[in-house]
Amino acid sequence: MRILVANVNTTQSMTDAIAESARAVASEGTEIVGITPRFGADSCEGNFESYLAAIAVMDAITSYPEAFDAVIQAGYGEHGREGLQELLDVPVVDITEAAASTAMYLGHKYSVVTTLDRTVPLIEDRLKLAGLDARCASVRASGLGVLELESDPDRAVEAIVAQSREAVERDHAEVIVLGCGGMAELEERVRAATGVPIVDGVRSAVTVAEGLVRMGLSTSKVRTYAQPREKKVIGWPFQI
Amino acid sequence: MRILVANVNTTQSMTDAIAESARAVASEGTEIVGITPRFGADSCEGNFESYLAAIAVMDAITSYPEAFDAVIQAGYGEHGREGLQELLDVPVVDITEAAASTAMYLGHKYSVVTTLDRTVPLIEDRLKLAGLDARCASVRASGLGVLELESDPDRAVEAIVAQSREAVERDHAEVIVLGCGGMAELEERVRAATGVPIVDGVRSAVTVAEGLVRMGLSTSKVRTYAQPREKKVIGWPFQI
Amino acid sequence: MRILVANVNTTQSMTDAIAESARAVASEGTEIVGITPRFGADSCEGNFESYLAAIAVMDAITSYPEAFDAVIQAGYGEHGREGLQELLDVPVVDITEAAASTAMYLGHKYSVVTTLDRTVPLIEDRLKLAGLDARCASVRASGLGVLELESDPDRAVEAIVAQSREAVERDHAEVIVLGCGGMAELEERVRAATGVPIVDGVRSAVTVAEGLVRMGLSTSKVRTYAQPREKKVIGWPFQI
Amino acid sequence: MRILVANVNTTQSMTDAIAESARAVASEGTEIVGITPRFGADSCEGNFESYLAAIAVMDAITSYPEAFDAVIQAGYGEHGREGLQELLDVPVVDITEAAASTAMYLGHKYSVVTTLDRTVPLIEDRLKLAGLDARCASVRASGLGVLELESDPDRAVEAIVAQSREAVERDHAEVIVLGCGGMAELEERVRAATGVPIVDGVRSAVTVAEGLVRMGLSTSKVRTYAQPREKKVIGWPFQI
Amino acid sequence: MRILVANVNTTQSMTDAIAESARAVASEGTEIVGITPRFGADSCEGNFESYLAAIAVMDAITSYPEAFDAVIQAGYGEHGREGLQELLDVPVVDITEAAASTAMYLGHKYSVVTTLDRTVPLIEDRLKLAGLDARCASVRASGLGVLELESDPDRAVEAIVAQSREAVERDHAEVIVLGCGGMAELEERVRAATGVPIVDGVRSAVTVAEGLVRMGLSTSKVRTYAQPREKKVIGWPFQI
Amino acid sequence: MRILVANVNTTQSMTDAIAESARAVASEGTEIVGITPRFGADSCEGNFESYLAAIAVMDAITSYPEAFDAVIQAGYGEHGREGLQELLDVPVVDITEAAASTAMYLGHKYSVVTTLDRTVPLIEDRLKLAGLDARCASVRASGLGVLELESDPDRAVEAIVAQSREAVERDHAEVIVLGCGGMAELEERVRAATGVPIVDGVRSAVTVAEGLVRMGLSTSKVRTYAQPREKKVIGWPFQI
Repeated sequence: MRILVANVNTTQSMTDAIAESARAVASEGTEIVGITPRFGADSCEGNFESYLAAIAVMDAITSYPEAFDAVIQAGYGEHGREGLQELLDVPVVDITEAAASTAMYLGHKYSVVTTLDRTVPLIEDRLKLAGLDARCASVRASGLGVLELESDPDRAVEAIVAQSREAVERDHAEVIVLGCGGMAELEERVRAATGVPIVDGVRSAVTVAEGLVRMGLSTSKVRTYAQPREKKVIGWPFQI
Repeated sequence: MRILVANVNTTQSMTDAIAESARAVASEGTEIVGITPRFGADSCEGNFESYLAAIAVMDAITSYPEAFDAVIQAGYGEHGREGLQELLDVPVVDITEAAASTAMYLGHKYSVVTTLDRTVPLIEDRLKLAGLDARCASVRASGLGVLELESDPDRAVEAIVAQSREAVERDHAEVIVLGCGGMAELEERVRAATGVPIVDGVRSAVTVAEGLVRMGLSTSKVRTYAQPREKKVIGWPFQI
Repeated sequence: MRILVANVNTTQSMTDAIAESARAVASEGTEIVGITPRFGADSCEGNFESYLAAIAVMDAITSYPEAFDAVIQAGYGEHGREGLQELLDVPVVDITEAAASTAMYLGHKYSVVTTLDRTVPLIEDRLKLAGLDARCASVRASGLGVLELESDPDRAVEAIVAQSREAVERDHAEVIVLGCGGMAELEERVRAATGVPIVDGVRSAVTVAEGLVRMGLSTSKVRTYAQPREKKVIGWPFQI
Repeated sequence: MRILVANVNTTQSMTDAIAESARAVASEGTEIVGITPRFGADSCEGNFESYLAAIAVMDAITSYPEAFDAVIQAGYGEHGREGLQELLDVPVVDITEAAASTAMYLGHKYSVVTTLDRTVPLIEDRLKLAGLDARCASVRASGLGVLELESDPDRAVEAIVAQSREAVERDHAEVIVLGCGGMAELEERVRAATGVPIVDGVRSAVTVAEGLVRMGLSTSKVRTYAQPREKKVIGWPFQI
Repeated sequence: MRILVANVNTTQSMTDAIAESARAVASEGTEIVGITPRFGADSCEGNFESYLAAIAVMDAITSYPEAFDAVIQAGYGEHGREGLQELLDVPVVDITEAAASTAMYLGHKYSVVTTLDRTVPLIEDRLKLAGLDARCASVRASGLGVLELESDPDRAVEAIVAQSREAVERDHAEVIVLGCGGMAELEERVRAATGVPIVDGVRSAVTVAEGLVRMGLSTSKVRTYAQPREKKVIGWPFQI
Repeated sequence: MRILVANVNTTQSMTDAIAESARAVASEGTEIVGITPRFGADSCEGNFESYLAAIAVMDAITSYPEAFDAVIQAGYGEHGREGLQELLDVPVVDITEAAASTAMYLGHKYSVVTTLDRTVPLIEDRLKLAGLDARCASVRASGLGVLELESDPDRAVEAIVAQSREAVERDHAEVIVLGCGGMAELEERVRAATGVPIVDGVRSAVTVAEGLVRMGLSTSKVRTYAQPREKKVIGWPFQI
């Protein structure tokens, strides 16, 4: 099966890292295709960038030239999953939701450790809408931007470990979700430092997407995610 | 003061109707400017169209050439308000939220009557995120599309009245919110038929926006809605 | 239009301060009339005093000799708004609710800073009943009584600023509501010290009340707030 | 021990019925004293009357000339319990809460069947504030006023049985709470007709009050229900 | 009347202590019978032990040779109450729920202070299922195991007092529930140190059970707690 | 990898059906081992039977003689998962939770269709504790017992289809979860009749368990699910 893994920003190296992380848990026979949007921000750290990414991912996925079996929206806490579900017949898995669901199998409560403080409310909102917030102990920010994770991984690990420990000790989290598409590499070091399971959204989403495909399940089309009605749409698909 | 009232679809006649409705309650000295996006769908009835509208409204507002004091996002149940709040220093008022807040001053519970069934979950999600759902008795659909409201107003009134009555009698709503930017004209007829206050989002938003401006209040910039960080953004502002 | 602004305590100087604050944002042509109850406590800082005020405000409003267009219940976190809604045909706006609704247009979460710790649960209860608590980050007390705000404004500002900072830094509030009818004067100083929008209940309520009147909206009479049934009532209206 | 059972309306025959019902489950050695307010409505069926009753009950209880061990606020869904808790050192038990707590020991969900439709939201609000609403399946109205229960008991039983059956069959209630101080007599007939346990608030409150006294427990005075602060109060205690 | 008070662990001295505590508040004429399970752990401090206890208590109660009027499940935060309710016709009262209900009559919020940190989530879950969590300020652990309470009562008091103070000062609890069947003796010392009412589950449950019996109320049998259907059950009743 | 799939009742044919269903979606190289408890009821349809099953499954799993990589608790809406998590180091997946998580990827709301009405509250409680109830539109009962599903599959399909249609049309479910371990075979027929995705708990749990193992994740041992403390346990492991 082929799974498209859509980065939400325009940084190709992050797409590559995400796709590599996805491949690490993909079953034999699963092809992982990393997708980079044609437009948008080089990192998503707020609502404007996230809304732009929502459209850019829809643009990129719907213009992908070959068949595919599932799509992973690989931006943590971002807008747009519902639009993809309307446009596509194959399953769409958001990494925010896949990570939360996975964490909930592993402990009584989980916390998310993400990048900037300003993205915390976006993540809280995504979890609330997904109905996956009841067992979320906290969403904490390391204070480092998305691209700083790549440029200074040691400092990133330190900051993430510090917040993860707070989450376990103060917020009573028993599992930590790494709340960023680009954090997967840091996983092992955070686990060693905290002693709790560390969940990565991209990997979780791969197992979910594969499972849905194997069970022959896809998005319900009876109501919320029915195909858009036929109508006049100006400027779409984007000509850029 | 000048208030930009942004339609979310590309139908100019709807922009005109919305602006006219806004002017009906605007104070003397308030200039209402109707804004029509340059791209997007001619009606918004689902997530894809709504996400596209979110970006299209940001595009239209940020390219407006003159100064303004407040913005009204005049699509009911649509995405995008948070992005506008990041990009602008003036207050942004979403009609979904303005209508709900207004309804809550008038009765113990309110219901929303909207167009198509498929938009009900979008509205429910917007109200939940806004924290304005606790006193929402129900969101009901008339079954008519946005453009049908214009083309066959009698049938629209009939369908809306039927659902409003159900809302009052079964769901115990004491106030009805008309859940669509283009429904304002139907207001008087629905009120007569149901005996409860009918709240229109655009009008509510005008009074809210004027009030915020008069109190010298605008969006907090300390966290969620801080100006986007400086970064490389491809394809924005849109060249279409 | 004429708006009655009802103080909940019997301290005339507070009524005057409240009315003056209301006038600062009232539109031209709006007459603000401050109302002081004939009986009750000289400050409301608990349930007994608040229940007494509820009745005293109903007494004062229903015995007001001339016509009016709206009523503002200007006690923060107090009982009684529902009773006024039953007795009157014009809109009734509670400042606790007006402030919360206003704050929710300005940031992702808001906090209330009030006077005494013992009034915190009353405010929490009012917000919960109003369905406006979902985005309330915290209700914090400055530890100063209502009348101390007047007698020692400098100490009051200091205490309120300290709690407001805690609200922003620890509770992640992005907006501060001043939770007391008599705090309006302190607004500017708190804003300067915290950098977030400061919402005052009385001013918010004036803009809401004006908006409702301008839209021709008033309390729904179909159920909860229907006129009291005809019955024998001993001792009412009060002869004091 | 002596328990004051406060009727919320001024109808002496209802006080007598309530007191008699209370005596039916009181332990040997418990003296039940029925209290009728000096002012207020002859039945409480809305917020105005309920707020007036809140003050009238405080007036009646605080002017009771002898010692007592506990107070029962015997109006279903009424305001005022918090004020009594501030003024008194002995336990105060509200029948709305006592009935809900009792019902929750007996089945997975309970419903309340009350008098007029307009009182349903008051009861819902009381249960929400008390934190006892999570297992409340519904609050239903028989459509009969408080005094009609006395004047036409057969019709009352019929209407209450009809709503109780709906509660069990549609709302999945497993226990019925009779939501009115004056309904206790109807209990046996409703139980026979529905086959589920029928809980009466007054009786429940007597067992709760006795239990609290026997355990030596009373209202916490550290915060919400601390004695009112010393201050100038005009017109209290009431001179009528 | 005869009330069976079931310890959940196999430590006879704890059964004796529980029964003695129960007798301290039982009415004249109430016989308290302490029940010790035939199998299970000598203390319950986690899910495995609690599930085992659930079955062991059902085994012990159903094999009790004489008639009884009510059962108290005297393990704090333990599984099993629902099973007993199916098997028996008399009322079943869980001390976790009885304590919470009792505490809610005494203050705006309550906290639970229990033994080990690992039992906190069990208690939180029990309160959530019981619908009694809305006014629970916190569940805190003293860090001492169940049996340490008996072996080193001074250290236990110290640890419990420390947590109770935190609950009052930080979490704004106004009442403390001692969250363990064996903590009743410590009550007086904790009350003296904290100044708030201290609620014991066993004593609360006795007053509740007596009240239910006196009102002639027992578990509803229409749905959730109906008698188990006739079927083949291997290995039950247990032959050990 | 080897996954133990534990039936909760003692009916071997149901274990076989469950295991076969599990194998249908298992990856190559995954061995599915069906486990039947040594004691308990031949079907679980209530709390007593479910509590007994909880212990019986723990008994069966802990006495399994060989190594395994994950455990699936294959009773829908049953007790016991938390105990298994304490006793084991490998992941434990409950089918109630796996099905809900899976359904939430496929539609805005899901409904569960189960067997007897009396099991509905058990399922609701499991979903609430799991924090997976926010998007559950309803839990509906077909009215047929567990074993009737096997003995009269045509009638079962008819009853399940009827309830599924109600769930979609009235409760606005977009996905149906078959709420019983033995319903997997009926899946295709229900899907054809309703047009929405049908989720089976056992199959969902297999994909989840495989995913967790592949990601190297297992139950957090820092708090709730830590290994039981060393202590004296009478009668365990069971000698039957």
